[in-house]
Amino acid sequence: MKFRLMTPGPTPVPEETLLELAKPMVYHRTAEFRELLGEVIADMRKVYMTESNVVLPLTASGTGALEASLVNSVPAGKKAICCVAGKFGERWTNIAKAYGIEPIVISVPWGQAVQPEQIEKALKDHPDAVAVCTTLSETSTGIGHDIQAFGKIVAATPAILLVDAVSGLGAMEFRQDAWQVDICATGSQKALMMPPGLAFVSVSPKGWKTIEANPNPRTFYFDLKKARKSIEGNDTPFTPAHTLIKAMRLSLKRIVGEGMENIFTRQDKYARAARAGFQALGLEIFPTQPNTALTVVKSPNGVDSTQVLSKLEKKYGLKLANGQDALKGKILRMTHMGYIDQFDILAGIAGTELVLAEMGVKAEVGAGVAAAQRVFAGK
Amino acid sequence: MKFRLMTPGPTPVPEETLLELAKPMVYHRTAEFRELLGEVIADMRKVYMTESNVVLPLTASGTGALEASLVNSVPAGKKAICCVAGKFGERWTNIAKAYGIEPIVISVPWGQAVQPEQIEKALKDHPDAVAVCTTLSETSTGIGHDIQAFGKIVAATPAILLVDAVSGLGAMEFRQDAWQVDICATGSQKALMMPPGLAFVSVSPKGWKTIEANPNPRTFYFDLKKARKSIEGNDTPFTPAHTLIKAMRLSLKRIVGEGMENIFTRQDKYARAARAGFQALGLEIFPTQPNTALTVVKSPNGVDSTQVLSKLEKKYGLKLANGQDALKGKILRMTHMGYIDQFDILAGIAGTELVLAEMGVKAEVGAGVAAAQRVFAGK
Repeated sequence: MKFRLMTPGPTPVPEETLLELAKPMVYHRTAEFRELLGEVIADMRKVYMTESNVVLPLTASGTGALEASLVNSVPAGKKAICCVAGKFGERWTNIAKAYGIEPIVISVPWGQAVQPEQIEKALKDHPDAVAVCTTLSETSTGIGHDIQAFGKIVAATPAILLVDAVSGLGAMEFRQDAWQVDICATGSQKALMMPPGLAFVSVSPKGWKTIEANPNPRTFYFDLKKARKSIEGNDTPFTPAHTLIKAMRLSLKRIVGEGMENIFTRQDKYARAARAGFQALGLEIFPTQPNTALTVVKSPNGVDSTQVLSKLEKKYGLKLANGQDALKGKILRMTHMGYIDQFDILAGIAGTELVLAEMGVKAEVGAGVAAAQRVFAGK
Repeated sequence: MKFRLMTPGPTPVPEETLLELAKPMVYHRTAEFRELLGEVIADMRKVYMTESNVVLPLTASGTGALEASLVNSVPAGKKAICCVAGKFGERWTNIAKAYGIEPIVISVPWGQAVQPEQIEKALKDHPDAVAVCTTLSETSTGIGHDIQAFGKIVAATPAILLVDAVSGLGAMEFRQDAWQVDICATGSQKALMMPPGLAFVSVSPKGWKTIEANPNPRTFYFDLKKARKSIEGNDTPFTPAHTLIKAMRLSLKRIVGEGMENIFTRQDKYARAARAGFQALGLEIFPTQPNTALTVVKSPNGVDSTQVLSKLEKKYGLKLANGQDALKGKILRMTHMGYIDQFDILAGIAGTELVLAEMGVKAEVGAGVAAAQRVFAGK
């Protein structure tokens, strides 16, 4: 049986990137490695769609980059407005609490998106808030936030906009400069076609001003000021996961080679095809404001999604993801970001169609793949 | 030319471990991965030589594990005695300062080791110190600390003993239970035969009591209490660098297969051979209390070690390390930990012998390799 990884992170990694990881170990304090790191940072800048922001690599998973973003910029005792539309929005709140930062929570039910007006109101109610913390793709529910609209609102205030783009950057439309995002955190294992273990933050000039105004950030490993000083010499303050950086160079060549505008268009088509396919199977889209990095659908009435997922994996080698926390058993989540193509998406829909037919849930076979295929054909 | 990596981290990685890294991506929230993580933790417990301590994996480099050890156990405003015998001892002090912990510094000149009496005195002068922070192998100078003696002293007090064993664990003799070490931090890229990117902490029951008594640790990503809760189900709070963990399983099989006692004996022989070889070349051993993970020698009078290292690399493919900070140009550092054998050590000495001869520093050729070889032969 052929295995297909279609979880919204980790996602498949291109073969040439994997093979790079199998190469003999090298030393990292060399001119060669510094050059390579410089290249990776330059390419990451293209992915972030920023001309001049400082992009910093961190050896950590995405949560480490979220912590770095928040802790460096918001002093203990100060306020951070946290947009919570799912598990990853909650994470902002939890990081804030751990560091004695006061979270001002904007909460919406899972499956819905925080609206720009809510941020506008929160900033009016809390003009002393230092930051607004949001999520580009809320992977737990599949919603996407209107970061462009958020950016406009936050830019008009002294607050800075922090975006968790761990899941989404490199797949969903995101333009850090144009959308006025101050700090954007991401991880390697989603749209960036890499194993987990690397994270990045990209900081705008306004973001730096806020970081520099923080008198006493409680951080050492994630000290962004120190990381910035090092990156000026294409270096890191501590031993980086340098073999991951070396391999990531190849994944980034693929991404930058395709070009961000092309990726946005392609991902949009993938998302429309996936939605059309699942809907043709009678499955309802879970998020009210879906994003283009993954598709999340409700399990059919009376069917435990855990059962569907188990059959998909055991019989067809298709690994999709379950819901988290209260959504476990209720939804199916399928990625279409990273090293995934239209035929992988077709496989995901085809497998679901077969499993539902076998379970007696869905009789008509072929409707799902045909609907997706029509979107791929531009019809 | 054949390249030989002989820096004291990163060190060479076994071929089967590298090839594991080239395998297709898998999902990490599965029974298979939990079983694998359980196996890695069980093997790490053998490496730490602990029966029952809680061993936690972190996706970070070694410094992250140091930060986790200190920040979880010592509250802001409280004291931590920091033993500083080089760059990595300094790191404890710097982490303490960043988190508002008061460092009580025991400092010795680089190349010397902190003595047990100094710790005894510091604990008497500061009976309110929460922790004593030390370094097993101070990689910047090549000294090894007498952790066993430190353990006896600290165990008789309410303080806990924190050991940075990033460089050394898995090569130098270290027995966490027998030596009464409370928190021991390490990284993957030294004796553990792995690329950088993973770190571990091992916490004793006394260590946990101190961590639990810390009312308000400022940490989220490195929250050890949360990590402990997850590891009870062979899980991690955040996406781990799971492909590194999967590969590490193979390196650990090698290490545990040889057995720690055998490794200690072998590493002791390697270190004696390396010292004998370099001394036969007329090079002086730099540390007054050398350890068995790496050998550090002074550059001959009037010779810049940077020049020697450059020739070693360019002509002979041998990558040894320079001194750091004030020691740059003054010393050569050669690892013998991890996936390094006696013939690699012989190559390191032979190369140095050739380069020194070519530079007109050392005339008699063959003395170095012969001296090392006599140690290998047990003579």
